[in-house]
Amino acid sequence: MPIDLSHEPRVEELARRTARFVREVVVPEEERYGGVAAVGGEELRGRLQAAAKQAGLFAPHVAPEYGGHGLDMRGRAAVFEEAGWSLFGPLALNIAAPDEGNMHLLEAVATHPQREHYLRPLAQGEVRSCFAMTEPAPGAGSDPAALSTRATKVAGGWRIDGRKWFITGADGAAFAICMARTSGEPGDRGGATMFLVDVDNPGMKIIRHIDTLDESLFGGHCEMVFDDCVVSDDAVLGEVDKGYDYAQVRLGPARMTHCMRWLGIARRAQEIALARASERELFGSRLGDLGMVQGMIADSEIDIAAARALTLQACWELDHGRSAAQSTAIAKAFTAEAVWRVVDRALQVCGSLGVSGDVLLGRFLREVRPFRIYDGPTETHRWAIARRALRGSRAHGNVT
Amino acid sequence: MPIDLSHEPRVEELARRTARFVREVVVPEEERYGGVAAVGGEELRGRLQAAAKQAGLFAPHVAPEYGGHGLDMRGRAAVFEEAGWSLFGPLALNIAAPDEGNMHLLEAVATHPQREHYLRPLAQGEVRSCFAMTEPAPGAGSDPAALSTRATKVAGGWRIDGRKWFITGADGAAFAICMARTSGEPGDRGGATMFLVDVDNPGMKIIRHIDTLDESLFGGHCEMVFDDCVVSDDAVLGEVDKGYDYAQVRLGPARMTHCMRWLGIARRAQEIALARASERELFGSRLGDLGMVQGMIADSEIDIAAARALTLQACWELDHGRSAAQSTAIAKAFTAEAVWRVVDRALQVCGSLGVSGDVLLGRFLREVRPFRIYDGPTETHRWAIARRALRGSRAHGNVT
Amino acid sequence: MPIDLSHEPRVEELARRTARFVREVVVPEEERYGGVAAVGGEELRGRLQAAAKQAGLFAPHVAPEYGGHGLDMRGRAAVFEEAGWSLFGPLALNIAAPDEGNMHLLEAVATHPQREHYLRPLAQGEVRSCFAMTEPAPGAGSDPAALSTRATKVAGGWRIDGRKWFITGADGAAFAICMARTSGEPGDRGGATMFLVDVDNPGMKIIRHIDTLDESLFGGHCEMVFDDCVVSDDAVLGEVDKGYDYAQVRLGPARMTHCMRWLGIARRAQEIALARASERELFGSRLGDLGMVQGMIADSEIDIAAARALTLQACWELDHGRSAAQSTAIAKAFTAEAVWRVVDRALQVCGSLGVSGDVLLGRFLREVRPFRIYDGPTETHRWAIARRALRGSRAHGNVT
Amino acid sequence: MPIDLSHEPRVEELARRTARFVREVVVPEEERYGGVAAVGGEELRGRLQAAAKQAGLFAPHVAPEYGGHGLDMRGRAAVFEEAGWSLFGPLALNIAAPDEGNMHLLEAVATHPQREHYLRPLAQGEVRSCFAMTEPAPGAGSDPAALSTRATKVAGGWRIDGRKWFITGADGAAFAICMARTSGEPGDRGGATMFLVDVDNPGMKIIRHIDTLDESLFGGHCEMVFDDCVVSDDAVLGEVDKGYDYAQVRLGPARMTHCMRWLGIARRAQEIALARASERELFGSRLGDLGMVQGMIADSEIDIAAARALTLQACWELDHGRSAAQSTAIAKAFTAEAVWRVVDRALQVCGSLGVSGDVLLGRFLREVRPFRIYDGPTETHRWAIARRALRGSRAHGNVT
Repeated sequence: MPIDLSHEPRVEELARRTARFVREVVVPEEERYGGVAAVGGEELRGRLQAAAKQAGLFAPHVAPEYGGHGLDMRGRAAVFEEAGWSLFGPLALNIAAPDEGNMHLLEAVATHPQREHYLRPLAQGEVRSCFAMTEPAPGAGSDPAALSTRATKVAGGWRIDGRKWFITGADGAAFAICMARTSGEPGDRGGATMFLVDVDNPGMKIIRHIDTLDESLFGGHCEMVFDDCVVSDDAVLGEVDKGYDYAQVRLGPARMTHCMRWLGIARRAQEIALARASERELFGSRLGDLGMVQGMIADSEIDIAAARALTLQACWELDHGRSAAQSTAIAKAFTAEAVWRVVDRALQVCGSLGVSGDVLLGRFLREVRPFRIYDGPTETHRWAIARRALRGSRAHGNVT
Repeated sequence: MPIDLSHEPRVEELARRTARFVREVVVPEEERYGGVAAVGGEELRGRLQAAAKQAGLFAPHVAPEYGGHGLDMRGRAAVFEEAGWSLFGPLALNIAAPDEGNMHLLEAVATHPQREHYLRPLAQGEVRSCFAMTEPAPGAGSDPAALSTRATKVAGGWRIDGRKWFITGADGAAFAICMARTSGEPGDRGGATMFLVDVDNPGMKIIRHIDTLDESLFGGHCEMVFDDCVVSDDAVLGEVDKGYDYAQVRLGPARMTHCMRWLGIARRAQEIALARASERELFGSRLGDLGMVQGMIADSEIDIAAARALTLQACWELDHGRSAAQSTAIAKAFTAEAVWRVVDRALQVCGSLGVSGDVLLGRFLREVRPFRIYDGPTETHRWAIARRALRGSRAHGNVT
Repeated sequence: MPIDLSHEPRVEELARRTARFVREVVVPEEERYGGVAAVGGEELRGRLQAAAKQAGLFAPHVAPEYGGHGLDMRGRAAVFEEAGWSLFGPLALNIAAPDEGNMHLLEAVATHPQREHYLRPLAQGEVRSCFAMTEPAPGAGSDPAALSTRATKVAGGWRIDGRKWFITGADGAAFAICMARTSGEPGDRGGATMFLVDVDNPGMKIIRHIDTLDESLFGGHCEMVFDDCVVSDDAVLGEVDKGYDYAQVRLGPARMTHCMRWLGIARRAQEIALARASERELFGSRLGDLGMVQGMIADSEIDIAAARALTLQACWELDHGRSAAQSTAIAKAFTAEAVWRVVDRALQVCGSLGVSGDVLLGRFLREVRPFRIYDGPTETHRWAIARRALRGSRAHGNVT
Repeated sequence: MPIDLSHEPRVEELARRTARFVREVVVPEEERYGGVAAVGGEELRGRLQAAAKQAGLFAPHVAPEYGGHGLDMRGRAAVFEEAGWSLFGPLALNIAAPDEGNMHLLEAVATHPQREHYLRPLAQGEVRSCFAMTEPAPGAGSDPAALSTRATKVAGGWRIDGRKWFITGADGAAFAICMARTSGEPGDRGGATMFLVDVDNPGMKIIRHIDTLDESLFGGHCEMVFDDCVVSDDAVLGEVDKGYDYAQVRLGPARMTHCMRWLGIARRAQEIALARASERELFGSRLGDLGMVQGMIADSEIDIAAARALTLQACWELDHGRSAAQSTAIAKAFTAEAVWRVVDRALQVCGSLGVSGDVLLGRFLREVRPFRIYDGPTETHRWAIARRALRGSRAHGNVT
């Protein structure tokens, strides 16, 4: 079969319905709350998710047995991008970070009882979750091997001690997936293990909300302490010492779903700029007839097309079980920068209107800025991309 | 005399003292209030300005007869940059927009009684002011000729009608300098006149604070209505129909003082990044030893040096009474983009810390973004620069 | 069927064999002649093409009935990129501009006798051809409607008069496909017609080789005059007045095949840089361990991946008979700039070696520079992309 | 005294006369020879230099006692930029690399007899010279400490052995200044010494002209071998083991004079683009009225202004005997990239004309490309700039 770039009809149909739902139901709520879902709280989340369920659009990425549509990564690319058109869209469809990535991970590595206990209610939107991996310097961040939170074997379970920060969605989460070192020392790789920790565990505490430039993610970015946090043996997610492998299971796809969602915001920003450029007069011309504005619009069209194509490439590799380390890194590095450029250009096209709250571009700019940092700063991805390219070159020795 | 690039000793000394004052007195206040002076209100403003007066640093740009240091543009370049190291520095020294530009304008074109009545208390920080020029589309913005607020002659004075927006500092200002059309029609140039309108004039109303990405300027960005706003003949600033000329008197220098102040923030951001790069370890290296980080740091050093040099060039021309239209446009276009790049890179170097409120980089990013738009979007300046270059080329005909 | 991004096995196999052939047979010749095939002349062309025929790789894009492999655009994407690894690769496979585009055009619109007379020997490499469309200013260039070469009906045929330049491959071509105005006036669109003009027509003359930055294309870039050039009625390619439509038939795919071939050179340049970065020591480090070098390498990997993905997207649309105007414009605009960046970075990584003739990077830089201009300057494509985006926005009215 | 940015009247007058001389006398010769002076050979050099002497413009940088105008670095900035308007201008005024830098070095460190023997005829243009420092990898390049050419003490003198490449102007030079290691080992710093080696020394051989992208420098870029090359003690330039210090004496100013000359070419390229943009019609508009073209023109104006300002800053520091390491690195890094961008944009504005030999832009593009590499690749300068910034930050500890 030759290469085929058309989505399956059922994916196209789901994407189309998602697009309509987001424009008609979600965007009005987003504008009412200025793009900050936390203002609306659980009431808003419940309302949005109920509407998505009713529209048959809920949890598109989850297996049917847990109530979802079972989309593969390519299918998610189409649907998540449409959901991402609004900052509230992913929340409505229950595909927001970090829950979406956690569901992916739980489907892949959790035991059946863990899936029933943790995945099922999460997939239904009954609870939220968080993923406690990142640590303040000099702990685990861009360099996972710096992991310093430690889990020690105790009778019948484990004791976790350490500090985590930028734990998105922690406040209000029913449970955390906590990554802790179970062998080796910070700096060497050693072994890490993932633990399922319930919110009522007295050893797990949120010590502050980190005040961040972005504000749209539900449950905030929190700093957490695990202090004498004892969990039972069946709190181990998957197997002991396989945490780094599982992190890869989660991180590759999670990178891509970030790209999909933020691509939606980029398109929205571009659409706002296009509308403005179509109607605004300046110096006797329509804004959209000025060459420098056209240049910005075109560059954004190109950025969006390239980001989408690179993301799709990586999704296809992930769906085929290939090691997509290089293609996800390329897609993430490009998309994070491209989305930023698109939103920034849209704001510039709109001029003073763009920095005002009368449109959401300033809000979008704040929300997408951290994407160039989390899930690996662009520089870290570029470093990894270059290293793989250099290895490939030496391996093949195919140089003129 | 050959070219000399050293500031006068008294300027250097003033700049040095300003730098120390800002670091020791102003920055702690800025951090306390997260960089948003409005939170501290008039009490904070009074406290900061009293400290600056006591330190002998107040109103460096104002003529000695009004209590200032009488610095020319070159001198301001040195001192304002140091004041700009903190978002609160310009407020403390009474050189924040729009008051600083208004003082400059009043010194240049106001009558003696107007200077005594408006300039003297403004220079002392007893009152604040605003400059009501920009209008919502399709009114005056990048294109001043689109001015649609109109002043009609009435017995003993004028009646002003129109709508203004993005009027910085309007809330709490004792008076506005309002630009209104006194001849011609929107789209042609015609004549404009500036009026001094007191806050208690019932025809001048603030109808809303515009919610903007930036939040550091005192008195906000407001939308105002002039509705049957009658002023007396002596409310005319300078002469009738000379408003466009006066706007130039104000705008060239005001562009440069924006550059100076924001250059201070750029240096501050760079200093935060340098400190982080010096201390943070990553992948077994100091952050500052990683080549991509070094590249960002160097690019910011270059941006800062070039912005400063271009600003100084324009200031020197302004001080010599030259038409500095091209050099101020070049300096403004370059500096607005450069400052943005520097702050953005600093945030990136700091990683997740950079997007957190634990450092002020996210705040800086929000504050400097609109600088690429106000006082002329970068694209408008580039358009004007190109037109002058093309005219110069055709005029000289000196082409190979 | 879900999206599938794997080439058909026969395409993959052809691409793999092409890659090997180019490295083993073509590159040594390229290095011998410094990348300028004209130095080797027809003897070299014959030798390379004979080798490609023997290897079963010749004319992969041409229909089997004319001796080719009948690849669609997606298949060409895979094979042409491998051929483009060497400046001589496309010549060897008979897929160099402008012959390749002319074959595509003749297959699509020529009559059976025209195909036998012109296409068959061209597809076999027995003759070469040129495409005479571009005119010196103010004639047809970025703006095809400015076409000023005119064809006038005479008894039994047409008389063509006009001037063309940058006619690639004209010197030594057996025939030209000449675009001439058959109705309307320059500036309006009117009608254009394509004519097949044999080299021995006394009314068609090459008046000079234009000395250009690039030198690798066989037959040079020529300036031609059509002066009282009379052709018979059956010299009309396709139908009268359909020239603009046919130009589109040729240009969309021709843009993409340029992208494919130059992508090959970009990969080659990157490979040279990788080899250098792997072996060269600097400041006690391997060049490839320096962060700024890694940054350049990664950016080139990203550029290559994005250019390939965008080109493939456009090819898929072309293969499905869709109007691929937007996607070919996006792919061309991005790829032309990306290829340039990749070659430039590779040269920079190699330092002084890079500007020397000891590697071919300086040659590559010269060859790829015009690609940002021909087949539409990047700015023209951006303008067209923006206009389509603006139309799409207004048409759908789907703005928040 | 406040900052003053006006050149001395005598400098302005010299610059003005240089500008006229270059346009009237030099440019016609440049166009005749396509910008490659070597084609005209010594005859051309003699003719151009005689004309410059007659015009009273020769050797403006050399002390009056050796026949020059004795300009300091600031004065050179004004005059060299005007000379650089043509690729042949520096040759005409005897301020081309490497002779100009060698004269600077000889004035600063040579003994009186050395100055009489080497400097005087060089300053008069009677002979040419070269500077033999750079070595093929892994020798001295970006990293001077890698110096591997070695000078061994022998009775009455020294024996030099080693290999040099990219030695500009070597072919036809009357003497070389050769840098050789006199203590330590490659990789550590150790001591280096500069030697004056006459062309008739049988131990010094040119083994090839390196074929490079650029071709305008007289005497080419050569690879040389020093093999049992014995010189007497008085061939030591200055003192033994002070070679690295002297290299700094030469390199800082030489970097700046490169910037000055290439800035001239950038302005010339911009002028060609402006002329084209003023006259060419496209899509019914003048090219110069299209926004994207205006954007390119403006960006080049900004680049030129910033490069000039940064260069002047560094020159002023050099004239005051300050350590100008940071400011020359900043000026060089910015200017090399800026000049490249300006020439590239000019070529793009001119479209197909730009890549043709009908204008010299393709030639300029080739000539300026290596400037981003020689005298330190941009990346090396950025690395050095960052290191100094990081040291400054740690030294001052003045971080918020």
